[in-house]
Amino acid sequence: MTDDRSALQVALAYHRAWTSKDLDAAMQHVADDVVCLAPAGRLEGAAALRDFMGPFSQSLVGSRVLAAFGDEQNALVYYDTETVPVPSAPAAEHLTVRDGRIVHLRIVFDRAPFDAARLAAARSTA
Amino acid sequence: MTDDRSALQVALAYHRAWTSKDLDAAMQHVADDVVCLAPAGRLEGAAALRDFMGPFSQSLVGSRVLAAFGDEQNALVYYDTETVPVPSAPAAEHLTVRDGRIVHLRIVFDRAPFDAARLAAARSTA
Repeated sequence: MTDDRSALQVALAYHRAWTSKDLDAAMQHVADDVVCLAPAGRLEGAAALRDFMGPFSQSLVGSRVLAAFGDEQNALVYYDTETVPVPSAPAAEHLTVRDGRIVHLRIVFDRAPFDAARLAAARSTA
Repeated sequence: MTDDRSALQVALAYHRAWTSKDLDAAMQHVADDVVCLAPAGRLEGAAALRDFMGPFSQSLVGSRVLAAFGDEQNALVYYDTETVPVPSAPAAEHLTVRDGRIVHLRIVFDRAPFDAARLAAARSTA
C-alpha cells in the first residue's frame, strides 16, 4: 500500500490522535524504527516514543496548533498544550516522513515548568 | 518604502543577523512594538527583545537551521544552537511579519540545561 499524504498531513494526523489521547491511532503514523530527539535525550523505536508520549497525552487538557507547514518529506508544527501540571506549555516538532510514516521527530519544549510543578507536588506531599 | 520579502525571508535574515552577534542588524527586522512570547514570559517592544537576545547571542558558538517554512505573514524556523554553557540547545520560533518587520515572535526552547549550567557554575565558584 502506498501512502501519498504529505508530511504535513501525516504530522497533523499524528498530532490530532495523541492530543485525543488515542495512542493506538497516533502510533499508526509512526515508523517502527522512528528516532525521536526530545529534551531528555534520544528515543529509538516506536515503543520508546509511545512510552514517552503516553503519560504526557494522559495529562493533557487540550492542545491548539498555532502554525504548521511542510513539504513532501518534512513538517514543522508549533502548538500550545494545556496540561494538568502546566497550564500553557508550547512545543514545536520537526517531523520527517517516509512512506506515510514518521521516521524522525524532533520535539522542543521547556522542561522548567514541568520540573517546578513536580517539585511543588513533592513538597506538598512531603 | 515597501518591503515585499516573505515572512520566511525576514525570519531567516533576522536569524542570520543575531546568530552573527549583530544585534543592530537583527533589530532592523523587528517592529518597535513587537510582542515576544518566550519561556520566561511576555516581552513587549523591541528594546525588551534586544535585552533578551543580546546576552544569548553573545554566548553563542554557532547555530544551524534544521527546517524553515513560511507563507506571506508567518514563518516557522527550527534551529539548533551551540552555546558556551550548553553544547546543544534546539529552539523553534513562530514569527508573524507585517510590512517586512517581525511583529509577533514565539520562541520555545528548553530552559532546563541552562538552569543546570548556571547552578553548576554557581557551585563551582561557591
